[in-house]
Amino acid sequence: MKYRREILRDVEGYTPGEQPRIPNLIKLNTNENPYPPSPKVMEALAALTPAQVTKYPDPVALELRAECAQRHGFDGPEWIVAGNGMDELLALALRTFVDPGDTVLTVEPTYTLYDVLAKLHGAVLTNVPLTADYQLAPAFFEIPARLCFLPRPNAPSGVCANREDIERFCEIFDGIVVIDEAYVDFADDTCMDLPMRFDNVIVMRTYSKSFSLAGLRLGIAAANPAIINEFMKTKDSYNLNAATQAAGLAAMRDYDHMLASAAKVRATRQRLTEALIQMGFSVPSSQANFVLARWGGEPNAAALFQQLRDRGILVRYFNYPNLDDCLRITVGTDAEIDRLLEALGGMIG
Amino acid sequence: MKYRREILRDVEGYTPGEQPRIPNLIKLNTNENPYPPSPKVMEALAALTPAQVTKYPDPVALELRAECAQRHGFDGPEWIVAGNGMDELLALALRTFVDPGDTVLTVEPTYTLYDVLAKLHGAVLTNVPLTADYQLAPAFFEIPARLCFLPRPNAPSGVCANREDIERFCEIFDGIVVIDEAYVDFADDTCMDLPMRFDNVIVMRTYSKSFSLAGLRLGIAAANPAIINEFMKTKDSYNLNAATQAAGLAAMRDYDHMLASAAKVRATRQRLTEALIQMGFSVPSSQANFVLARWGGEPNAAALFQQLRDRGILVRYFNYPNLDDCLRITVGTDAEIDRLLEALGGMIG
Repeated sequence: MKYRREILRDVEGYTPGEQPRIPNLIKLNTNENPYPPSPKVMEALAALTPAQVTKYPDPVALELRAECAQRHGFDGPEWIVAGNGMDELLALALRTFVDPGDTVLTVEPTYTLYDVLAKLHGAVLTNVPLTADYQLAPAFFEIPARLCFLPRPNAPSGVCANREDIERFCEIFDGIVVIDEAYVDFADDTCMDLPMRFDNVIVMRTYSKSFSLAGLRLGIAAANPAIINEFMKTKDSYNLNAATQAAGLAAMRDYDHMLASAAKVRATRQRLTEALIQMGFSVPSSQANFVLARWGGEPNAAALFQQLRDRGILVRYFNYPNLDDCLRITVGTDAEIDRLLEALGGMIG
Repeated sequence: MKYRREILRDVEGYTPGEQPRIPNLIKLNTNENPYPPSPKVMEALAALTPAQVTKYPDPVALELRAECAQRHGFDGPEWIVAGNGMDELLALALRTFVDPGDTVLTVEPTYTLYDVLAKLHGAVLTNVPLTADYQLAPAFFEIPARLCFLPRPNAPSGVCANREDIERFCEIFDGIVVIDEAYVDFADDTCMDLPMRFDNVIVMRTYSKSFSLAGLRLGIAAANPAIINEFMKTKDSYNLNAATQAAGLAAMRDYDHMLASAAKVRATRQRLTEALIQMGFSVPSSQANFVLARWGGEPNAAALFQQLRDRGILVRYFNYPNLDDCLRITVGTDAEIDRLLEALGGMIG
């Protein structure tokens, strides 16, 4: 490809989890919510008018941002930016705060998209391994970088780093700290209070998981207004369409629906974790809507992944060092998890 | 802002045309279609299911791209990429084919977003003035650059550059040529055949104008598969949500609705142009859904803009050299254009 930028030569692009069209598939591979969104969301979509479709949407999504600010305890919409999925906001963070050639810090294991985004931007990602119990290691506090991606709960382990470590890191890190709270609605606590205390902290949320809005693409970032102001310059003017703005607003106004949905997922997660441990898997205590199940037995994890797939049950397998003996399993409905456990029992029994 | 990239220091961001909420406003400033989208689009939106909202959308928008490829005479979907509005695709073209510091070429006057996007990317935009009749000047053929943005019909004049000049340019330009056909459905001809003849040509379309889908954000780019393949790496994985994919597909399958809508706009454009010339405006022959009306009399164009606004009629005024004696007027309904002409008549009579 003659005209392509040199930095793209070895970039593969992000490989999303499979979205196959297999009838009756039990899909436990991309961390979607097994329960539907609020009925108010569906009503908001059905109520879209031809005028809303014909005219440009609000370029600054003011009503939605005001609702999010109020819910999360911020003074006003100037503390929030909304994106076409959290992925857009992660990419924008690099384009706004990192120059090509600069170092970006993250942990290991981590969300694999960070590496793709860094490569696309020409930045250098440095991964510092977490401790054996998935906590921040001392070395993590010592590496200078322009920006840090910190998933909490961690993906793919589901474990939350200690709050005190996070706060200490925000204090000493001389750059932007992006705390990726994609899965935080399934966790016991949040860092949403940190943007008010640290002028270098951005907390991001997705609506794809707890709110069941993966199909509509919505994410938000909360940070002090000086940071948000930069995002407003670098984002596409009309990045969020009218359907997503309406759906997001409806979802926020029916917050209890999300809380009830997340509570069901947490209960099933508990049951799934205990059953997997019973079977001999090693499963760290997850605060997300998935668990990372490590397996030292036979058949190995890659074979289990394939055998499950053959039976119409799709989980996620990462063919990476230190993860190639794991299955990452999304917490589905109780019935789906029963089917999974039954199938696994037959394979390793 | 301590953490911001240095290249963003003087970037203002793009200023979209005003979207004020004034009752009974006649809005002729942002080139939206005065007519509604196909009823099939509204049906597709109303038919969205909770499952479509909950699950991730097709990351490669295959069905929509296949429909677009077929309509525009390409072999298959690998000739098309779909974006969250054409704005996303314009930005992606820079991120895929231009290194920071490189030169990007365009004409003058031109779509002002190109300059913002170039600045955000750290690229240098070179504007070569069009001739007095808005055609490509000889100097335009002589400037080396990595990429060229060529709006056809031109914004804000509405004039189409000669096809022969475009073809000659594509042949000799050693870089990517982006032909921005945002307004081409209102024009007499298109360059959609050029990607099949030149491996460096990308033709982009928006659904915000002729298809009346500005609120949903949809654009496409057509180019040879090697180029599209690069876009698939650099775009966000799930850049196009389920609502937009469904609406875009419905719009493409009711193509006649768009053609009828564009035909009405063209008829009104003709009447508007003649009336403005009658009043003493100088109006180049527009192939778009707007006209650029130059005014040498009193009160001046800035005053006319303000007086129209005071009467609830919003047009676009650019306070730039060579455009500050112009009004850019979107072609509205016949009734809206009658109101505009009556108001203008009262001001300059």
